[in-house]
Amino acid sequence: MPLYKAPLRDMQFVLHEMLQTEQNYQGLRKYQESVNRELIDQYLEAAADFCENELAPINQNGDQEGCHLNQGVVTTPKGFKEAYQKYAELGFTSLTADPEYGGQGLPTLLRIAISEMLCGSNWAWAMYPGLSHGAMRTIEHHGTEQQKQKFLTKLISGAWTGTMCLTESHAGSDLGLIRTKAEPNPDGSYSITGEKIFISAGEHDLSENIIHIVLARLPQAPVGTKGISLFIVPKFNVDDEGNLEDRNKVVCSAIEHKMGIHGNATCVLNFDGAKGYLIGPENRGLNCMFTFMNTARIGTAVQGLAASEISFQGALSYAKERLAMRSLSGPKYPDKNADPIIVHPAVRSMLMTQKAFSEGGRALAYFLAQHVDIVESSNDQEQQKHSDELLAFLTPIAKAFLTESGNESAKHGVQVFGGHGFIVEHGMEQIVRDARISTLYEGTTEIQSLDLLARKVLKSEGKLLKNMTDLIDQFISQHQSNEVLKPYLEKLAELKQQWLSLTKSIAEEAKHNPEEIGAASVDYLYFSSYVVFAYLWARMAQVAHEKLESGTQEEAFYKAKLTTAKFFYQKLLHRTQSHAASIESGAESVMELDQDAFAF
Amino acid sequence: MPLYKAPLRDMQFVLHEMLQTEQNYQGLRKYQESVNRELIDQYLEAAADFCENELAPINQNGDQEGCHLNQGVVTTPKGFKEAYQKYAELGFTSLTADPEYGGQGLPTLLRIAISEMLCGSNWAWAMYPGLSHGAMRTIEHHGTEQQKQKFLTKLISGAWTGTMCLTESHAGSDLGLIRTKAEPNPDGSYSITGEKIFISAGEHDLSENIIHIVLARLPQAPVGTKGISLFIVPKFNVDDEGNLEDRNKVVCSAIEHKMGIHGNATCVLNFDGAKGYLIGPENRGLNCMFTFMNTARIGTAVQGLAASEISFQGALSYAKERLAMRSLSGPKYPDKNADPIIVHPAVRSMLMTQKAFSEGGRALAYFLAQHVDIVESSNDQEQQKHSDELLAFLTPIAKAFLTESGNESAKHGVQVFGGHGFIVEHGMEQIVRDARISTLYEGTTEIQSLDLLARKVLKSEGKLLKNMTDLIDQFISQHQSNEVLKPYLEKLAELKQQWLSLTKSIAEEAKHNPEEIGAASVDYLYFSSYVVFAYLWARMAQVAHEKLESGTQEEAFYKAKLTTAKFFYQKLLHRTQSHAASIESGAESVMELDQDAFAF
Repeated sequence: MPLYKAPLRDMQFVLHEMLQTEQNYQGLRKYQESVNRELIDQYLEAAADFCENELAPINQNGDQEGCHLNQGVVTTPKGFKEAYQKYAELGFTSLTADPEYGGQGLPTLLRIAISEMLCGSNWAWAMYPGLSHGAMRTIEHHGTEQQKQKFLTKLISGAWTGTMCLTESHAGSDLGLIRTKAEPNPDGSYSITGEKIFISAGEHDLSENIIHIVLARLPQAPVGTKGISLFIVPKFNVDDEGNLEDRNKVVCSAIEHKMGIHGNATCVLNFDGAKGYLIGPENRGLNCMFTFMNTARIGTAVQGLAASEISFQGALSYAKERLAMRSLSGPKYPDKNADPIIVHPAVRSMLMTQKAFSEGGRALAYFLAQHVDIVESSNDQEQQKHSDELLAFLTPIAKAFLTESGNESAKHGVQVFGGHGFIVEHGMEQIVRDARISTLYEGTTEIQSLDLLARKVLKSEGKLLKNMTDLIDQFISQHQSNEVLKPYLEKLAELKQQWLSLTKSIAEEAKHNPEEIGAASVDYLYFSSYVVFAYLWARMAQVAHEKLESGTQEEAFYKAKLTTAKFFYQKLLHRTQSHAASIESGAESVMELDQDAFAF
Repeated sequence: MPLYKAPLRDMQFVLHEMLQTEQNYQGLRKYQESVNRELIDQYLEAAADFCENELAPINQNGDQEGCHLNQGVVTTPKGFKEAYQKYAELGFTSLTADPEYGGQGLPTLLRIAISEMLCGSNWAWAMYPGLSHGAMRTIEHHGTEQQKQKFLTKLISGAWTGTMCLTESHAGSDLGLIRTKAEPNPDGSYSITGEKIFISAGEHDLSENIIHIVLARLPQAPVGTKGISLFIVPKFNVDDEGNLEDRNKVVCSAIEHKMGIHGNATCVLNFDGAKGYLIGPENRGLNCMFTFMNTARIGTAVQGLAASEISFQGALSYAKERLAMRSLSGPKYPDKNADPIIVHPAVRSMLMTQKAFSEGGRALAYFLAQHVDIVESSNDQEQQKHSDELLAFLTPIAKAFLTESGNESAKHGVQVFGGHGFIVEHGMEQIVRDARISTLYEGTTEIQSLDLLARKVLKSEGKLLKNMTDLIDQFISQHQSNEVLKPYLEKLAELKQQWLSLTKSIAEEAKHNPEEIGAASVDYLYFSSYVVFAYLWARMAQVAHEKLESGTQEEAFYKAKLTTAKFFYQKLLHRTQSHAASIESGAESVMELDQDAFAF
C-alpha cells in the first residue's frame, strides 16, 4: 500500500488561502468565536497523525482479511476496533455535533477536511463513523428531545454507532418501491418487518450498540415515495436510563462479498418485528432524509477526492523510483541503467491528471462544505438562501464528478505501476476496487446527472445555474486586468457562454421530447463539472499568482499550483467539447433501438 | 456471472458479410482449398459449444478459488484441467499450427474468432492455451528441425503447454535491462540462471510438461536490447525419443496475488542453472520475439473486445429485467411497479457504448487477423507488403484501444447494475478486475502509443498512416453516391484530413522538442483509434444498408447495426476533438513541473 501522507499543506492552501475560512466564519454566529486558523490547524494535525499512524497501517490487512459473519456476529479486521476506540477517545465522533448533547459544535468544513484524511488512509474503516454521522444528523434534525437524550448522546460520544437502512433488494435508486413494514404497537413504538440490503456498517464489533435509521411503510401508507416513514431501530433495546436491555429483533443474515471496501461489513439485515420509534412526521421519511442529503453526498464526493489523492501519492513515489528507458530528449540520469519513469511525458500526464483532480476536488469539496456551514449558521437570510441554492446545484456535480475522477485517478495510479499495479501487494489495485463503489452508492452518476439537469437546472428555469455563472462573472470582472490570468479568464468566459446556450437548447428540445433530458444529462453533468473545476482552478491560480507576486518562501509550491492550473486548462478542459457535441446530437441514436432488437 | 452466449451472428456478419472471408481467402495459397464459409461456421459452432458449456460454468469459481502453490506445485481451480483436456481432444490446440508437425494449418482469423469466445467465457483459463500458442509460434518460426520434432509436436497436440518468460522484477517495458544469464555447456546446451516474474501459466497441473521460452544474456553479450538471446527451457528434460526425464532446475517460487485473472497462475520462476537450448541466432532474441509480436498483441486486443462483449451481455439482460422508476416520456409498463431500466436514456447510452465498442472491436480484430493471414500466405508480394504495413500501423491501435474500451465497457457493465454491480455474485465486477490487466501486459497503452506515433507514423514519415487514409479515401469514393452513408462519409473525410494535419504538426513540433512526441502520443492513439473505428463502422453500415435494400429476413439485426453506427458517430466519435485539442496544446504543461516540485 502506498504510504499515506496527509496533504496538509494543500488542505491549508484551500482552507486558509483560497477560502479564507477564518475571515469568512467571523460572520457565522455558531463559529465566530471558536473557529480560527490555529484551531483548524490543530485539529488537522491531530487527525493527520491518527490517519497516518493508526488507520493507514491497517488498511491493506483490512482489505485482505475482510469482515466475517458467524451466527449473526460480525468481526471486523484486526485493529479496526482499537482504532475506533482511539478515534472516539480523541473526540472525533463529536466534532460537529450539537454541544447540548455532548458535541463540539465545530463546522462541517472541518469535518469534511478530516474526513478526506480518514477516507484516504482507510476508506473501509472510515465508513463506520461516516454512517454514524448520518444517523446522528437524522436524530439531531428530526428526533424528539427524548430520542436525542436516549440515542444521540451515545452516538456523539462514540459509544454507539449508527446506520442508514434504505435499500431493499428490488429497490435502490427507486426508493418508492420499498416494502418494509412498520406496524404500530400499543406502547407507541412500532414493529418493523422486512429485509434491508447493502447496509454499510450494519453489524460489527466496534461499539456496544448500533442505532439503525430505517425507511419503512406504515399501514395504509400511500404508495410510492410519499408513503415512507423513518424509524429508529436499535440493535439492543435501551431503557429510559440509557442502559442496554434485550437484543432487538434485527439480525444480520449475511454480509456481501464485494469488489472492494472489504473492511466494511455490508449487511443484509432482517427485521422481524423489531421494535422501532417513528422519527419525524408520518410518511415524510424521504423528506427527512433529504434535509441532509447534500452533506451525505459531499461526504461521498470526498471519498472520490481521497482516492485521487492516495493514488496520486502512490504513483508519484513509484514514478520517481522505477527505472525504464531513456527520456526522449536524452538520458537524464546517465549514471543509472535507465531514467526514472517520471521523465516520460505519458507518465507525467497521468500524474498531472491525478494532481489536477485531487487538488481541484479538494477545492470543490471544501467550497461546498463552507456553504453548508453558511446555510446552517449564517444570520444573513440572503446569504443563506444563496448558499443553499449553490449547494443544491453543486452537490450532484461534486458527488458524481469527484467520484468519477477518483476512479479515473485510481486507474492512472495502477497504469503508472505497469504490471506491478495489478499485484495486490502494491496496494494500487485496492484503490481501484474501493473507489468503484463511490459512483454507485448515495445515488449513481446517472441519478446525479438527472438531479442536476432536471431537478436543479430545468426546474428552476436556469436560476440555480445562473447563481453559478454569476460567481464566474464576478471572478472574471474582478481580475480582468490580471495579465497572468488572462488565458484562464477568456476560456472561462467562453465556456460559461456555451454552458448557458447548451442549457437553453436542451430546455427547448425537452419541450418536444422529455427523453432529450435523459439523453443529455450525463454529458451535461460532465460539461458542468469541468467548467466548475475551471472556475476553481482559475481561483487557485489567482491566489498562487498573488503569493508569488508578493514574495514567498514557498515558490515551488505556488509555481506547481500554476502549472497544474495550466495543465488542467490545456489537457483536461477540452473534454467539455466532446460532451457538448454529444449533447447537441440529441436523443435519437440513444432511443432508436427497440428493446427487443437490443440483442447480441 | 452473466451467462455467456457466443455472439455467433455478429461474428458471422464480420467474417462473411463485411470481410468476405471465403472469397478473399481464395487468393491465399495455404487456405484456398480448405477455407470456406461452411468450415468456418462449423468450427465456430464447436467452439461456441465448448465455451458456453465447458468454460463459462467454471469462470466464476475459477476467480474465487484461484490457483494454489504448494512446494513448487501449482493447482488450478476445479474443472480447469478437465476443460483443458477436452479442449486438446477437440483439436483446438493444433488449429493454426504447421501440418508437418501435426497442425491443422487453419488461418489466424479463425483462431482469433475462437479466441474471442474463449476469453469472453473464461479469460483466466484462455490464457493457458494462449501462452502455449506463443511458445509454439516461436519454435515454429525460429526452432531447428530437431527442436520442432522434440517440442513443437507436443505443444501442437496439447500434451504440453508453453510460456513466454520475458519480465524480470526490475525490467518490464524496458527488456534491455534483463539480467538472466545463459552459460554455454559442453554439450551445446546452456545453463540458464535468473529470476523471471509475471510468468502467466508458468506452473500448473493442466499438462505433463511445460516449455518455457526464456529471454537471457549470453556471456559478454552487448548491453541493452541487442544482447538478448532466446532459449527453450523445458520443465522436465526430454530425451531424444521425446520421453520425460528428470526435473529441470526451474521452479515456481511464488504465485502473485492479483486484482483479477485469479484462475491463471502468474508465477515467479527461478532458473538455477536450468538446461536450455538456444533458439534463433545469438543476441537476436528480441528480434525473434518481434516477428510475431503483432499476433500476440492482436490476441490481447481480443481479450479487450471479449470483455466488452460479456459485460454488454450481462448489462443488457439486467437492464431488461430490473425495474426502477418511470420513463421520462411516461410509463412504458404501467402494469408493473416501475419500468425496466432499459427505458432510461442514461442506461441505454451505456449499453449502446458497450455494443459499439464490442462490435467495432470485433471488426477491427478480425480485419487485422485477415491481414496476418495475407502476410503469411499470399503469393502477391505487393499485397503482402501492404498488409504487413497495415498491421504494423493498426496493431498498437487495436491492442491499446480494444483493451481500453474493454475496460470502459466493463465499467459501464457494473454501473448498469447499480450497487449490485459491486457484488461478487453477479460477476460484473470480475470482468472489471480481469480486464484491468489488458492495458498493462503485452505493452502498456503508453508503450503502444509511442510505438504508433514514434516508430510507425513518424519513422515512416507518414507512409504507414497514408496506407490507412488511402483505405478511407477508397471507401469514400466508392460509396459517395450513397445518400444513406453520406453523413458518415462526410465526417470520415473531415476526420481523415484532421488526422493528417495533426500528424504533420506533431512532426514539426518534434523537430524542436522530441518531448512533444511523448506528450502527444496517448491522445494521438485515441484520436487514431476513433477514426479507425469510424471507418469500420461506416463499412458495417454500408453492408447493413445493402442487405436491407436487397431484402432480408433479418431486418432487426441490420437495423440495429445502422443504429449502432449512428450512435458511434453521434455520441462517441466527438471524443476525437478533445484529444485533438489536447495534442495541439503541446508538451509545455506536461513537462514544466520540476521532478522535485512534483509533490503533495
